[in-house]
Amino acid sequence: MIKPFRGGIRKGGLNALSGGSIAITSMTPKPVQQLKKREVFHENNSNPSSDDESDVDDRHPPRPPKTRRSSSGVIAAAMAPYVTEFDLYEPQSADDRELPIQKIAVVGSGSWGTALGRIAALNAAEKKGFDHEVRMWVREREIPGQGLLTDVINSTHVNHRYLPDVPLPHNLVAVSELADVVKDATLIVLVVPHQFLTPVLEELSKPGVLTTGARAISAIKGVEVAGSEIYTFPWLIEKKLGIPCSALGGANIAMEVAQSEFCETTIGVPSKDDAALWHAVFDSPMFRVHPIEDVAGVSLSGALKNVVALAAGFVDGMGYGGNTKAAILRIGLLEMAAFTKEFFPSSSSLTFSHHSAGVADLITTSFGGRNRKCAEAFIKTGKTFAQLEHELLKGQKLQGVATAEETYQFLHARGHFIVTQIQPP
Amino acid sequence: MIKPFRGGIRKGGLNALSGGSIAITSMTPKPVQQLKKREVFHENNSNPSSDDESDVDDRHPPRPPKTRRSSSGVIAAAMAPYVTEFDLYEPQSADDRELPIQKIAVVGSGSWGTALGRIAALNAAEKKGFDHEVRMWVREREIPGQGLLTDVINSTHVNHRYLPDVPLPHNLVAVSELADVVKDATLIVLVVPHQFLTPVLEELSKPGVLTTGARAISAIKGVEVAGSEIYTFPWLIEKKLGIPCSALGGANIAMEVAQSEFCETTIGVPSKDDAALWHAVFDSPMFRVHPIEDVAGVSLSGALKNVVALAAGFVDGMGYGGNTKAAILRIGLLEMAAFTKEFFPSSSSLTFSHHSAGVADLITTSFGGRNRKCAEAFIKTGKTFAQLEHELLKGQKLQGVATAEETYQFLHARGHFIVTQIQPP
Repeated sequence: MIKPFRGGIRKGGLNALSGGSIAITSMTPKPVQQLKKREVFHENNSNPSSDDESDVDDRHPPRPPKTRRSSSGVIAAAMAPYVTEFDLYEPQSADDRELPIQKIAVVGSGSWGTALGRIAALNAAEKKGFDHEVRMWVREREIPGQGLLTDVINSTHVNHRYLPDVPLPHNLVAVSELADVVKDATLIVLVVPHQFLTPVLEELSKPGVLTTGARAISAIKGVEVAGSEIYTFPWLIEKKLGIPCSALGGANIAMEVAQSEFCETTIGVPSKDDAALWHAVFDSPMFRVHPIEDVAGVSLSGALKNVVALAAGFVDGMGYGGNTKAAILRIGLLEMAAFTKEFFPSSSSLTFSHHSAGVADLITTSFGGRNRKCAEAFIKTGKTFAQLEHELLKGQKLQGVATAEETYQFLHARGHFIVTQIQPP
Repeated sequence: MIKPFRGGIRKGGLNALSGGSIAITSMTPKPVQQLKKREVFHENNSNPSSDDESDVDDRHPPRPPKTRRSSSGVIAAAMAPYVTEFDLYEPQSADDRELPIQKIAVVGSGSWGTALGRIAALNAAEKKGFDHEVRMWVREREIPGQGLLTDVINSTHVNHRYLPDVPLPHNLVAVSELADVVKDATLIVLVVPHQFLTPVLEELSKPGVLTTGARAISAIKGVEVAGSEIYTFPWLIEKKLGIPCSALGGANIAMEVAQSEFCETTIGVPSKDDAALWHAVFDSPMFRVHPIEDVAGVSLSGALKNVVALAAGFVDGMGYGGNTKAAILRIGLLEMAAFTKEFFPSSSSLTFSHHSAGVADLITTSFGGRNRKCAEAFIKTGKTFAQLEHELLKGQKLQGVATAEETYQFLHARGHFIVTQIQPP
């Protein structure tokens, strides 16, 4: 069911607050290993077994190098019952419903695709209602001295290029032919770099390639601009493939997700059915999924936050402090919401102000992401972004720069934008 | 006038977005010295002269050590026309109104009090409608070999103890007697450590001490808890002094404010008149003031953000990454708003999600503040907070720890809180 926005706390008082506050009540440091069972669980906690620490530790080996108290399950356990109030679907477990067995395909195998594939495969192996095998599309190539890349991934269960040192579940199978990857798949995760999306959709839209009744989700960041028109990737995918498409976004730095640092993610869905299914695919104790009814908001936030992160990097590069950076983030967040609301009127400003895909993603990206890093270097070194992409990103493109150019061109084509340039003296 | 909340962008399209986006349109770094005049100014920009850079540079000497492009006025100029849409008073300039001359008193001279006194004195010297002299209350003491502290401040125009290296305007006058500080004052800035508030209010409430028609503003962080009751400081001040009291809060690390790093602040006001007056006292090109109609929200956010910053410090101390920290901040912000709405129903969740006193202050404090720093040390060293206050803060108290204890006791007294402790194994 869709929960109405109430803007306050859940009826029944402040019970829901206990989750986020546990650390504060303990005023002397103690070994962090066991969380006392709460007397009252959140009444809508759909997965109470996620508090089971042995399960957490088994599935999520602790990250090796950092200094850390023993159990990675503490934060997950503390936060598991916390469900936000705002504009949220309450996902039903797919297990409870009469559904055909779901088969997951992951189209893409960069760091983010592999991290998402890992989580989906762990869930497919464990939850009812899923085909055990999750296929992941890998662009085939020869690895010198080791053979084909798919064979290397399938024998070592590591994606050495994009997620080195992260063991992958054996039921995540690398496949080189796109048609084989999506064969019989009912749930298709699209996570290719956005310049590859058009040829991928071309291939998938051929007759007989997709299964009837399949659904897609986009984890691709960016927007598609054509003159004075702007499109989200889920919209393009729906149009081209004729299937419903959701959007996934949140404060999710890929390597941290792969190493089972606790995080949250937001899924913008077009329907309740999509909410339940994608929640089942991705939700796990260390990766909490909150579905909301705003595909456009999740898509746009994921794209525009990279532009604000560039501004945050400029602030860092120019030597300004925390006050200025916080002002840039606050105003940037309002701008992101305003832009989205202007051109996608059905979107919700709550997506930006309350959800992981909004404010949390912006914070993470503006402090830790590569757009911020390159923007700081841009100010300090005077090099072009093209140079910095070559030197710092091994030739990968900075999404913030591309999105800034595209949204600028779009706004200009719409006659909205006022050109303001910083001029030499 | 009070502007209605519209939740979107200003009519007239995206013009308002140009302010925050200027850096992005310039794709190669250029000397940052002169901002091309925008063709269109924000129609409600109440102080267009703030774009005058010579004025900015004159009043705000650049911070010496950091690597920085030349002009500190660029960000201020870019952001000056940006006025948020949300729940905002549009302050009228005090110059335009028929008012008696206003006289400002600053009660407190720690780093934050001195930083605010400096801004108020610069404005009082420059704007019409203000008595030139701003008095600041200093607890008198003998400085070995130099004489009385007030004399040292008034002869050197530096507060060596709390804001070393920051030159203060000569019209900011240190005074040791509280009754002398507030004599004839119409605008009283209360910025004492909160444990000193009660005796200060005792003194100020004596007959003949305060001027008729005076107003107060509180920049004190924290809350007052008595059993199952909770009070904001502005409420206590209003009760005790019988004068209207506003609240000031925002992403404002004192030293950065004193050194004229660009920042924003939020003022929660009980009336339009207060909005106009306090805006005139504090608004300047590098310290943008946004008045809103939510005294309780600004007060509570300033108190509760320190508790969330402790949690952020625990995350850092335990070695978790950006995803986890962003989740803590997101959930913490929702908790702050939920707590405030529960006990101060007239407050607005927009104060938390959209304003500097909310989301921006939380970000700054959770990345740069001393609560975060001490909480990280608490995890890493195993020392008590009392020890850490002694070692890292020269004996000053951590506000987050006090506020956590007070709100815990309050919630417990109300029967709301579920005790969840991290237990030893």
